[in-house]
Order: sequence, then structure tokens, then C-alpha cells
Amino acid sequence: MSEHNDFTPDHQRTERLGFDEAIYCLAKSAGQIEAIVRHAHDRGARLLLTRLEATKHAALGADLHPHLDYDPISATAWLGATPPTSGAGRVGIVTAGTSDTPIAREAARTLQYYGVEPTLVNDVGVAGLWRLMERVETLRELSVVIAVAGMDAALPSVIGGLLPGAVIAVPTSTGYGVAAGGHSALHAALASCSPGVTVVNIDNGYGAACAALRILGARDLP
Amino acid sequence: MSEHNDFTPDHQRTERLGFDEAIYCLAKSAGQIEAIVRHAHDRGARLLLTRLEATKHAALGADLHPHLDYDPISATAWLGATPPTSGAGRVGIVTAGTSDTPIAREAARTLQYYGVEPTLVNDVGVAGLWRLMERVETLRELSVVIAVAGMDAALPSVIGGLLPGAVIAVPTSTGYGVAAGGHSALHAALASCSPGVTVVNIDNGYGAACAALRILGARDLP
Amino acid sequence: MSEHNDFTPDHQRTERLGFDEAIYCLAKSAGQIEAIVRHAHDRGARLLLTRLEATKHAALGADLHPHLDYDPISATAWLGATPPTSGAGRVGIVTAGTSDTPIAREAARTLQYYGVEPTLVNDVGVAGLWRLMERVETLRELSVVIAVAGMDAALPSVIGGLLPGAVIAVPTSTGYGVAAGGHSALHAALASCSPGVTVVNIDNGYGAACAALRILGARDLP
Amino acid sequence: MSEHNDFTPDHQRTERLGFDEAIYCLAKSAGQIEAIVRHAHDRGARLLLTRLEATKHAALGADLHPHLDYDPISATAWLGATPPTSGAGRVGIVTAGTSDTPIAREAARTLQYYGVEPTLVNDVGVAGLWRLMERVETLRELSVVIAVAGMDAALPSVIGGLLPGAVIAVPTSTGYGVAAGGHSALHAALASCSPGVTVVNIDNGYGAACAALRILGARDLP
Amino acid sequence: MSEHNDFTPDHQRTERLGFDEAIYCLAKSAGQIEAIVRHAHDRGARLLLTRLEATKHAALGADLHPHLDYDPISATAWLGATPPTSGAGRVGIVTAGTSDTPIAREAARTLQYYGVEPTLVNDVGVAGLWRLMERVETLRELSVVIAVAGMDAALPSVIGGLLPGAVIAVPTSTGYGVAAGGHSALHAALASCSPGVTVVNIDNGYGAACAALRILGARDLP
Amino acid sequence: MSEHNDFTPDHQRTERLGFDEAIYCLAKSAGQIEAIVRHAHDRGARLLLTRLEATKHAALGADLHPHLDYDPISATAWLGATPPTSGAGRVGIVTAGTSDTPIAREAARTLQYYGVEPTLVNDVGVAGLWRLMERVETLRELSVVIAVAGMDAALPSVIGGLLPGAVIAVPTSTGYGVAAGGHSALHAALASCSPGVTVVNIDNGYGAACAALRILGARDLP
Amino acid sequence: MSEHNDFTPDHQRTERLGFDEAIYCLAKSAGQIEAIVRHAHDRGARLLLTRLEATKHAALGADLHPHLDYDPISATAWLGATPPTSGAGRVGIVTAGTSDTPIAREAARTLQYYGVEPTLVNDVGVAGLWRLMERVETLRELSVVIAVAGMDAALPSVIGGLLPGAVIAVPTSTGYGVAAGGHSALHAALASCSPGVTVVNIDNGYGAACAALRILGARDLP
Amino acid sequence: MSEHNDFTPDHQRTERLGFDEAIYCLAKSAGQIEAIVRHAHDRGARLLLTRLEATKHAALGADLHPHLDYDPISATAWLGATPPTSGAGRVGIVTAGTSDTPIAREAARTLQYYGVEPTLVNDVGVAGLWRLMERVETLRELSVVIAVAGMDAALPSVIGGLLPGAVIAVPTSTGYGVAAGGHSALHAALASCSPGVTVVNIDNGYGAACAALRILGARDLP
Repeated sequence: MSEHNDFTPDHQRTERLGFDEAIYCLAKSAGQIEAIVRHAHDRGARLLLTRLEATKHAALGADLHPHLDYDPISATAWLGATPPTSGAGRVGIVTAGTSDTPIAREAARTLQYYGVEPTLVNDVGVAGLWRLMERVETLRELSVVIAVAGMDAALPSVIGGLLPGAVIAVPTSTGYGVAAGGHSALHAALASCSPGVTVVNIDNGYGAACAALRILGARDLP
Repeated sequence: MSEHNDFTPDHQRTERLGFDEAIYCLAKSAGQIEAIVRHAHDRGARLLLTRLEATKHAALGADLHPHLDYDPISATAWLGATPPTSGAGRVGIVTAGTSDTPIAREAARTLQYYGVEPTLVNDVGVAGLWRLMERVETLRELSVVIAVAGMDAALPSVIGGLLPGAVIAVPTSTGYGVAAGGHSALHAALASCSPGVTVVNIDNGYGAACAALRILGARDLP
Repeated sequence: MSEHNDFTPDHQRTERLGFDEAIYCLAKSAGQIEAIVRHAHDRGARLLLTRLEATKHAALGADLHPHLDYDPISATAWLGATPPTSGAGRVGIVTAGTSDTPIAREAARTLQYYGVEPTLVNDVGVAGLWRLMERVETLRELSVVIAVAGMDAALPSVIGGLLPGAVIAVPTSTGYGVAAGGHSALHAALASCSPGVTVVNIDNGYGAACAALRILGARDLP
Repeated sequence: MSEHNDFTPDHQRTERLGFDEAIYCLAKSAGQIEAIVRHAHDRGARLLLTRLEATKHAALGADLHPHLDYDPISATAWLGATPPTSGAGRVGIVTAGTSDTPIAREAARTLQYYGVEPTLVNDVGVAGLWRLMERVETLRELSVVIAVAGMDAALPSVIGGLLPGAVIAVPTSTGYGVAAGGHSALHAALASCSPGVTVVNIDNGYGAACAALRILGARDLP
Repeated sequence: MSEHNDFTPDHQRTERLGFDEAIYCLAKSAGQIEAIVRHAHDRGARLLLTRLEATKHAALGADLHPHLDYDPISATAWLGATPPTSGAGRVGIVTAGTSDTPIAREAARTLQYYGVEPTLVNDVGVAGLWRLMERVETLRELSVVIAVAGMDAALPSVIGGLLPGAVIAVPTSTGYGVAAGGHSALHAALASCSPGVTVVNIDNGYGAACAALRILGARDLP
Repeated sequence: MSEHNDFTPDHQRTERLGFDEAIYCLAKSAGQIEAIVRHAHDRGARLLLTRLEATKHAALGADLHPHLDYDPISATAWLGATPPTSGAGRVGIVTAGTSDTPIAREAARTLQYYGVEPTLVNDVGVAGLWRLMERVETLRELSVVIAVAGMDAALPSVIGGLLPGAVIAVPTSTGYGVAAGGHSALHAALASCSPGVTVVNIDNGYGAACAALRILGARDLP
Repeated sequence: MSEHNDFTPDHQRTERLGFDEAIYCLAKSAGQIEAIVRHAHDRGARLLLTRLEATKHAALGADLHPHLDYDPISATAWLGATPPTSGAGRVGIVTAGTSDTPIAREAARTLQYYGVEPTLVNDVGVAGLWRLMERVETLRELSVVIAVAGMDAALPSVIGGLLPGAVIAVPTSTGYGVAAGGHSALHAALASCSPGVTVVNIDNGYGAACAALRILGARDLP
Repeated sequence: MSEHNDFTPDHQRTERLGFDEAIYCLAKSAGQIEAIVRHAHDRGARLLLTRLEATKHAALGADLHPHLDYDPISATAWLGATPPTSGAGRVGIVTAGTSDTPIAREAARTLQYYGVEPTLVNDVGVAGLWRLMERVETLRELSVVIAVAGMDAALPSVIGGLLPGAVIAVPTSTGYGVAAGGHSALHAALASCSPGVTVVNIDNGYGAACAALRILGARDLP
């Protein structure tokens, strides 16, 4: 074949958007991932990796492990130091249940990689509404709230009615029957009765964090 | 053809179930409906009609109109007197928005036809949560609450988390985009994070009322 | 991150609804489940666990096993003593085929955990109608009948036409082709030609039992 | 363009299959239909027309009307004499409700056009099961039973469990919510728990009749 | 619980329909299957088992193996002797491609269990039309043709246009993309442009054979 | 019935969220809309109305017309004066084609009602990419860009890769076949390969504008 | 608003692609269409219009009518002279039934507008296979064959197996039940068992013609 | 059974279409594949195999391995020598991301097997548009461009607007949430705003290559 190079990295992305290209590991082999990480490490670059399963992470060269900050719950890793966090009090991440934790952490870790420390509020689904109501005052001060919920995804609607900041819903694939795959949650979030709730793809915690970074003005972050 | 009779009325239904067969008018011509109503009127029977559009109602014989209690909003009518209501304080009907009113009234009128007077709480969708919270104490005393909601149908989930009685969700076909046809509401209600919420077909206010009658013990109602 | 506690238990649920929060184990690790069970055991609390697969159950600390009543068919377990059953003759559970048994047992065990002993009628799908007809008189005396069926889910419709009590359909994910995942059964149950049949999510035996508890008046059960 | 003839009639069909090509009128203009009918009339041929709406029928040339046997309920018409019926006692058509009548008549009229007189049993849906049970003995003697039903389409399953003959289910587009368009009925019929039930497209009464003709051995009918 | 018997066998089925209840093994454990087979063997009964995977078959008691006629390709087995075949020349089974073979054999083996020997024509999909045309004359003499095809399922349409006998289409779940799961094939078969083609559920070779048996008059077979 | 008031206005919304409750007119009668408008007019309040079709607008009392600023293309109207616009250069609205104009104007008019003047860039779909590239420099300075596109909705992805600001995609129901109803556009926007693109419901220009207002900090706008 | 021009014509398209931008009229008002046509007429330009319904065509200024070549069956029109046709024998258009004619003519007229005269073969669906087989030799000489078919869309598969040229399938929205909207045809065409069949959107005759023009080398056509 | 031969090879295909029947290995056992390969090898024939997973390839007889050119990334193999490539500069294959590589290579290898050497352009998705723009001039000279993309599949639309040659989109099943299975990509490609883009089934690189061969005139290739 006339060309053998599978990769054309978008090295101009940070300049254009304020954040660089993350490595989506699900469809890549451990060998491909190791090559990318090693190349970045060799030139002293930072790197964010998402959907890096534990077995693939374990299969990377042992000499790379000390340089990778890996979180098995969110299946994310980063190479290189994170900047000092400066965004405290600006972004919140709220989950409906404990099964939403992996996606919430993917969002949290993406924000941390870019120096933004999120406020986390876990397991406050609307079946026990008092749990959310106890936190409302804290949440009302935030510029952006990422609401992570599966099944009926009633949480983004309730939050959207209570909080003035930007609300980004992340539907999750939690659940079975009509909830399997996250489609009931996705459609509920899109059809939210609260005005101005926006939505990202099912389980896309990384995308929600990027949206928050755009709102914070990623190019101007330290 | 060897048989010309299109109808085989289920005249044993009241004895079996405690309520008789309602006339679903959508797929019937005005002529067919008039024949059924006249036949019941002639033998002094009561009759409940659902999905009776205003134009079809108007097309019925003028002599029948005084005997029909017709409600154009819910497109329901009944022939004959309703029994004295005795179920006050037992069944509530709650709507998320004003576009849910026709379906809520279909449920309310079905209950009234069988002598049950429902408590109505309208337009208390979760985008403005304080509206529902103001009514919670009233609703907590009811045996059955019918929650009528379209779009994200977050209302049944919030109600199911607050009230101990039976909760029957009626998804409505309100809305556009992913909410069109009521499928987002249906799936959200089925995937409710609150335990023990049951669901009927989209826009099926009549069915929700029948379910409430079963719970109240239709055979034992006066 | 500013908060590390993933769990916000809804400890007020029993007071509000009459039943406590069950532990849905599918999305939790054995370690997380063990921590929850141990914490409840230490404070002498009861606990219901659903979707607890045999391998996860086996992975729990051996000292906990004597305290857990585990049923591998329904993948449910409970910690602590169940109350004396008092609801005999009030709730029935009917299955269409033997593959509906696990879901039916999830419902039965949830009822037993709250002191309600259900009447079970198994494998009476409508392809052999005489099997159901032999039991009709028994079923007609019950307040609530939970009908568990997959594929064409004709059973809830036939039951809804024969019995006056509340009917809760549980569609199951039995079958292949158009029946795979339980969607044909779900839609058939929602579109039931029998009035007042209510429906819960596919395979949600736990939810059907909770709905029955609401109807029985969970707060007033012993 | 190099060719202007839109029609290529399949004039060899009767020889191959035992029945000729019916004219599906829904997507044809009144002018096109009139041309086809006139051409057949002029050469003394018979013709079956389906989905011929009343307004299109009325728009055909007045001189053709006496030669067309038109049924507005089923929207079918035929040109020419029908053969003496000989198939009495061989094919039955059973409907679940009165809204299934138009489709059932499309099947019945197709059979009559080919000299088969069907036994009709109307409005015997399973919500009132006694209605069907009263007719079972008659139906058990038939070679083919066409079961026409919408919504939950429980009727074909119950019939398939009771009768030994060939069962052809015709799902209908009756109903609203999940039943709209006939998909819940189609899927229930395909997932029937009764063995050997076959299915045709939604609302396809014509197709069910052709299938019955194939079973009767169309080439050998008088 | 008040009843522990999971099975209610439909022992009257043969009398009603002409064929007995097959054992669908997919949702049953090896232990359950063994109990059923042993019970039938002990009382000298015949038994047909479908969807019996090789590993489950291997797990059955070794003493049972000599009595079971097992076919791993179709995952079917039968217990007891089959009757002498008498239906030669009456039923054909035609496949579009080699991946349709397992389903075609499920149909063939079901017929053989009831004494009907089908004519098999394999791998004659319409992409190479000459393969089918070479067999047309043979197929035209049959009473029933079962057409097994996945993907675009063009085969039943072409066959339905060429043959006068009853045509039963079995869509298969062969293929990927839009063909995955068999839904493209199912919809194409239902929408067939050839009149009188009937359809069974995806991959339901057993059901197609039962439909053929109904057409042949199962009660009258030897 | 025990309560007749259909409306429970969320009069606390502006205080909570920074914008008031818009009147969604599609499911309301002209009479209901007139009552709401007149009530607001009488007490000197402002009001935004969406999905107000021309015929309904025309049916409102003639004395109200001078007080309503009505735009038939977007089917929006407002009562009362709009604030001086102050947001120039902050929000852009970009359309892929001319059929996206009504939805884009719904967004634009909502922003104007709250004093934000958007920058409009029309008909720059990616089939003629140079049209968008000519405007990139202008768009790069904006805080928020609303991208309105139907069919393949490639525009939000291209924009998301070029611009650093917040990107809100509004899928539109333009088109036919797989594009009908807007689902292809919705899914493409959710699956965008550009990081941080958020999405609102199909045709929801109002919701996109509210999301932009949340980002701008609606409570702090003049 | 800062910009009022809704249109950004892609005037460079002919140079890039070899064909200019057609006017898709469905979502445009008669006034908008008239403005576009008049503007082109004034500058002596040619123009192709698709989906121009008869009533909209009639509403255009009477002085424009003599300059527009309008075909009501395909709802297409063109302004200006067509080039001498030179492509005879290169492109064929084949339909399965007469209801596919409008879409086939949209394709044919688009080709004619660019000087390519297609060979038309109508109403040769596979239910009567001999009709197609009579034309095979003619079709085998063509470079491109556009196959227009709805319902089961078996035609493109059969054609793809018989002809060596490029095959472009156009699924049509003909039919009802599972065929409604054209999705069964679309999926069958995509899942074609014949190798190398390509597909365009449902009812997109224009797109199929453009694809043929690309294959013929649109830039090099006279 | 009356016939045991599962295979009816279409040995006339090359004569008819210009390419022979490829062996689709996914639904075949290693034993079946080995038999087919050995038979071809013995008679000196060439053979193309697709979807041949590495484990199946490894399970083939060791003596066959030297004769098979196997590519594990695309899961393709061929037996026999490929012709000298002659099509350089005629066909391009463009991918949006690295996860599209396997499908792109399936297309490339199919072309090579028939002597056509494609130009490859990898990882140029529209999120970083400059990557594609740098290659446009090269791509504009090609007769056919195969665009391989998943998720939002914006790439075929952008390419279709920039290049005059034939464009064949291959949607891929890359991604999660709404992108899972490739349906969002498929629908976006079918709804492309660029005229004349054609589409093949999800992940069907082989089919796209065959379509390109048809366009090049497969019968006339060396």
C-alpha cells in the first residue's frame, strides 16, 4: 500500500481549543498504547488516556508505570504532572447512584488533568430527594454542574430547576430492561422539562468535562 | 359470509371484574357509536365512552345529547347517572404540566363514573419543585396516586420517593423530538429509580383509573 | 477531589415508604457489597440484596455466610430474620413458563422479606390454557396478582380479563429474535386489551413486589 | 427517456401460483386505476382491487360502477363474477375486536373472489375469554384459521394453543402508544408461545388470504 | 412459599394439536433437562429437545446418551424412535447460504421427529440465481416450502413468486451491521412483494416445522 | 372534582435561574394563551411565547396584537419591551442550511428577549466548506456558538474542532428517509468526534438559548 | 440581529464537483423559491429544482412558467436548456413496481439535466421474475444501474447478482406495516447478499443520479 | 434427509460480475474453511477469505499456511498470487480515526487481490480538519474514494463536498452510547448533505471494495 502510517496526530488542537487530543484506548492494542505513551514520555509531553482497562494498563512496559497516574475505577490515566488546581468552586459533579461513579470520575479526572478541582456530590438520586436538597446551597454557587445519572435520569431535570449555572447531563448505561444501554436516560435528559439542560453521549464523562472546560474558557486557564 | 355480527359484547365483565366494558370510540364511526348508545339507553343501561372526539359527539342523534354527560377536554362521555361518590381521599391525580390535563381528566372521569372522586393536583412538574413539595402532606394520605407526565417523566420518580401509596404512572405523548409519541416518558417511568412505581400505556388515563379501581376493590365499591 | 464518600444511604426511606433501600448488587464489586453487609450486620440491621450473582455471593467473607439467606435461582439474599408472614391469600405470583421462575422468585423473596407469603402458580402460559383455568377460582380471591411472562406476554391479558384484583405484569427477557431482551413482552403487556393491567420494567420482580407492598399498605404491615 | 411504459403486468402469475395479480390502489391515481379496470373489463377479465379508498372508487368512470362489487369497509372491489364458493368449513377468520373488522373483511373478500367462503367469528378478544371458548368446537374443524388482532395480539397465541389447523396471524395497527402502527401486535404474534403460528405483515388481510389459498392448493381450486 | 412445583406440563397438547410439547433447553440448566429426559425415558415416552447446546448435552447422565439422537449442528435431540417417514415430496427446506444450515436442520429434524422427510435444497441465495432456477421444477411439486434466509432475505420473495405451495419464511440472524440479529431479514420477509408468504420468528426453525405440520394436518399423520 | 385550577405558575423561577417560565403554546388553545397573555399584560409583566403558530396568533384578541412582538418564521412572540442588548460578540448562531432558519431564529429571539444580541452565520453546511472557513475568525472570538443542523449534522463536529468556545448543537428535523424527525442529526451530534460538544433536543432552539444564558450567567445579565 | 442573509449559495460547487447546487424545495416557501428562480433566470443561469410540489409550482409567478420544464410525477423542474444527451447506453434505471415511478423519474430527470439519457426498465419486481430476465442482456451493457425498490427491496440483490456494472439501490417508502417509511427496503438493500451494491437514502432519486454522475466523471461530461 | 451437500458454489460469478465469490468465514467452522481452502489449493484456484479470525486461521492445517497471505488486522487472507497492480491513482481509502483501520484494510486487501493498489490516507477525521485539507489535492485526482468513519461519520460529507469522484461511505461500529453498533454513522452517511455519496453496510469494507471494482469495470481489469 502506498502509505503505512495509521496515525495523523492533531498536534494543533491545544492551540485551537485549549486542550490536547486524549488517547481513547478502547479500540487500541496495548502495543499501540505503549508506543504512544513512550513517544510522549520521551519528548516530555503530557498525555491523558481514557477507557484504559486494567488489563491493558498492566500490559504496558513496567518502566512506564511510575510515570502514569492510573485510576482503575474510571479507567483513566495521565502522563506527566498536573497543573496546580485553580478552579475550585467552579465545577460540580453530581451522581444519582453509586453505579454512576466510574463515569463521574472520568469527568473529574479530566478536569484535574487541566487544573480544575471539581466539587463532588455522590448518590443523591431523586428517590430520596432530601439528600440533594441538603446540598443545594453549595451547588447554587457553581458555574457548571455535571449531572451523571442512568435509568430515568430525573436528576438533571431536578437540578436544572434548582440551579442557575450551566447543567451538563451525562446519561449512564446503568440498569436493565428499558434502561439497558442508557437510552432511557439519554432521552429523558434530552426531553428535560427544565430549560437549558444540555446533554452529551451516554457514559461520556470525558466529553462533559471538555464541555465544562470550554465554558470556563479553556484557552485562558493556567 | 357466514356471520354478519361484528360485536360480541362482554356482558359478563362487571360480574367478573367489577367494571363494565367501556366504548373505545376512536376506531368506530359515529353511526356505530350512536347504535351502541341508543341500545344502552333503550334498556336503561349506563355506558362510559372514551376517545369520543367533539365532531363525532356532535354527529350523534340530537335526542341523545341530553342523556350524555360529555367532556370535550378529555373526550369522554357517559350515559346514565353516576353513583354518589364515596372514594374521596383515596385516589389522587397529579400532572406535570397543563398539556397533561386531557389524559388526567380521562382518568378522573373514569373514576367518577364508578363513584370515586379523585383529588387533583395540577401542573407541579419537577422543574419547579416547590409546587409539588407544598402538596406532599395531602398526597401522603392517599391509597393510590396517578402521576401523569410526558417528556422526561421525572414526576412519577419524585412522587414514588415521597409517597407510600400505590403509584401509577401515565406517560403522555406531550412534546417533540425524542419526546414525541411519549416514548421517552414511557421509558423513564419504567426505569424509575423509585421502587414500586407501575406504568400503563402512553396516554392511557382510562387504564390508570381501572388499575386504581382494581386496587380499591372494584367489586366492593358501592 | 473535595469529597470521597460514594454512598449517601436513604436512611429515611422506611419511614417515608414503609420499606427500606434494597442493595442492587449488579454494578457493585464484592468488596463494596461486603462492606455494606458487614456494616448492617454490625449494627443489627436487616438488609435485602438483589441481583447478587453466585460468584459474588461466594466471594463475601465466610463469617457472613451463616447470616445471609441466599437463593441462587433468584440471586437474592437477605440479612437478618424475616417477620412472621401474615399476608397469605393476599398476593399471587403466576408464571407463563419455567424460564420466568428466577424473576418470579425475586418477587416472592422480596415479599417474604416484608412478611408477605405469596401464592405461587407456575408454568401456566396460554398455549395450554386449561392449566390456568384450573386455578382461576383460587386466584380470584387475591388482592394482587403478579403475572410474570416473556415472549408474547399473553398471560397478563388473559389474567386481567378473568380476575378482579390488581394485576401487575412483569415482562421477562426470555426468548430470542423479536422476543430477545423482553421488548415484545413489555409492549404486549402495556398494550393489554384487559383494562387496568399495570406494568413494571422488564425482569423487575423486585419492583413488582414493591408495588404489591404499596397496594397492601406497606406502612401498616406488621 | 427511452421507455415510457410504467407497467409490466405479471400475466403469467395465475399459471404459476393459482391466483392473479391484485391491484394495490393506495399508490395509484384514480386515473391509473380506471385505465387498468377498463382494460380488464374490455377483455372480459376478472380483477381484484385492494386499498381502494371510497373517494378514489367514486372518482372512477360511472359506467364502470355497475361492474365493480365494492365494499367500503374493507376498501376492496372486484370486477367480474366470483366463482361458486366451495370452501365452506375450510377457512375461518377470527377478530379480537371491532376495529379489526376492515382487515378481516379484506381477507374474507379475497377468499370469496377465489371461491372460498370463510367462517367469521368476530370480537372475541381474550379480555372476555368465554366469547372465544363458546366457538372453539366450530373452529377446531377448520383447516386454516386467520387470527386478526392488534395491541397485545394475545388472540393468535390462545387460538394456536386450542386449534390444530394452520394459524395465520394478522397483526393490526389498532391502538395508540406502544400499540400505534401495529408493532406491539406484530412482535407478540411472532413471539407467540404457541407452536406453529405464522404471521403476515401488519394489516395485510390480503396476504393472509393468499397464504390460506396456497395451503388449500390454489391451483386445484375450482 | 405455598407451592414448589415449577413445571405444569401441557400433557393434553398432542390430543389438541397433533404434536407434543418440545423442551426448549436454552433457559434450563443441565440438571433440569436431565430430570425431564429421565422422567420421559422412565415412562417410555418420546421427547423432542431444541436449543440443546453441546456442553449441556455432554453434561447429561452418560446412561442417557445412547437413548438420545443428538445433532450438534442444529442443537436438537430426540428421545425414542421416530416413526417411519411418510411425507416425502410434501415439504421442502431451502436455504440462502451455508450459515442458515443450523436453523434449516432444526426444522428438518422437527419434521423427521414427526415422520415427515423434507426435501433439502441448500445454498441457493439469489446472488447466484441460476442455482435456484435449476431446482424450481422439483420445488413446484411440494405442498410446503420453508425458506431459510438472513440478511436481505430476498429468497422467500423469489420463491414465493415461483412456487404455488405454502411458503414459510424463517429469517435468520446471520450477518452484521443492519443484518445483525436478523431484523433486516425479518422485515424483508414480512414486506415480501410475493403474495401469501408467511413468516415465523427469527431463527425459529422449530416453529416453521410446526406450521408445516399444521398444514399437513398433524392430527392425521401416522 | 376537588380542584379545578389547571395552572400552577412557577413564579419563583427568575429568582432561582435568572430567566422566567416561557409559554409553550403548541399544546394550548388560543383561549388559554389569550388568558395568560392578558393576565401578564394587565399586571405589566413581560412574557416569552414559543411555538405560537400564525393561526393561533391571529386568533388572539385584536387589542393584544400591538403589544406582542410576533415573528412568524420562528413562531415566537414576546410581550413587553426587551432590555438593551449587551451581549454582542458573546453568542453566535450558525446554521447548516436554510431549512434550519426557524429553529435558529427561535434561539436568537430567546436571547434577544433577555438582552443578548447574537451573531448570525447562515447556510454554511459542510458540503461547501469554504463558506464556513471564511467566517472562522469571527466565530473564534465568541464564548458560545449554537450550531443548528439537520440530516448528517456534520456542522457541529467541524465547528467543535475549529472553535474554542462552548458549542451547543441543535439537531433539526429537516429531511426525509433516515433524516426524518431529526434522529440522524441528533445521534450524529451526540457522537461528535469533536470533544466537548453538547446537545439539546431536536428543534429545541429555545433550550439552546437557555443553555447559552446559563453559561453567560443569566442571573448577572442586566 | 447582526446578519439577515439566510442564503450562502455554494457557487463554487460546479467547479469542484462537476454539478451545481440543486434547490430542495420541500422546506422552502413559494416566495423563497420564486426569488431564487427569478434571480437565476435574470442572470441566464440554469437551475434544477427537486421536491417542488404541484401547488407550489402553480404559485410561482406566471411569467416564469414558460421557462420552467416541470414534471409533476417526480416533482422536479429545471430552468434553462438541457445539454444534448450523450450518455445513452451508460446508465439504467430499474423499478420494482409502479409506485416507485416518482423516485425513478427524479433520478432520470436529474441525469437528463446534465445531459445523460437513462435507459428505463419499469415494474420488474422479483415476484414475477421473468420480467427482469427478459431485460438482462440489455442491462448487462450499462456502466451504472440505479435500482429503485420498496418493501423487501429484493430487486437490487437480484440485479447485483446478474449485472457487472455499478449498482446503486434507492429504497422507497412504498408500502405499509414494516415497510412504511422505507426502512425495511433500506435495510434489505444495505444487507444485500450481492457484493458491491451501494445504497442512498430512502426516496433519494436525486442522490442516486448524482452518484451516477460522479461515476461517469461529471467534470468531463459535455 | 434427501440431500446432504450444504454448499452450492456460485462458480459462474466471475464470468457474470468480474470477481469471484469470497469466503465469509465468521459463520463457518475452521474445519469447513480448511476444506474449502484445500479444495481450491488442490485445483490451483485463487481464493479471498474475509472475517477470518486469528484463532481460526491458526487452526487451519499447517501445510496450508505458507500458501495463505494472512493479515490479522483486517482478518483477511488470500490463497494464490495477486496480479500485478495497475490501478494506482484510481482508488483512495480515507479513515477518520485509527479504530477504522481494520475495516479500511479489509477494503484495501480486497482491491489488492484484484490488482488495484489503493492510495491510503489515515486518521484525518474532521475534528482536526487541517489534516484532511493537506491531502485534498491528491484525493481530487482519484476516480473513487472510500471514506471509512464511525460515530458522527462527518468525514464522507466533507469529502463529498470537496472531491468530484465517486464517494463510497463505510460506516464503522466504532464507539459507544448512540454510536455503538455503527447506526449513528450509518444514518449520518445516508443523510449526507453532500450530493451523490453512496453507502454500504456497517463495517463492510469488502463490499465497498467490490463497489469500487464495479465502477472501475471489474470485467475489464487485467
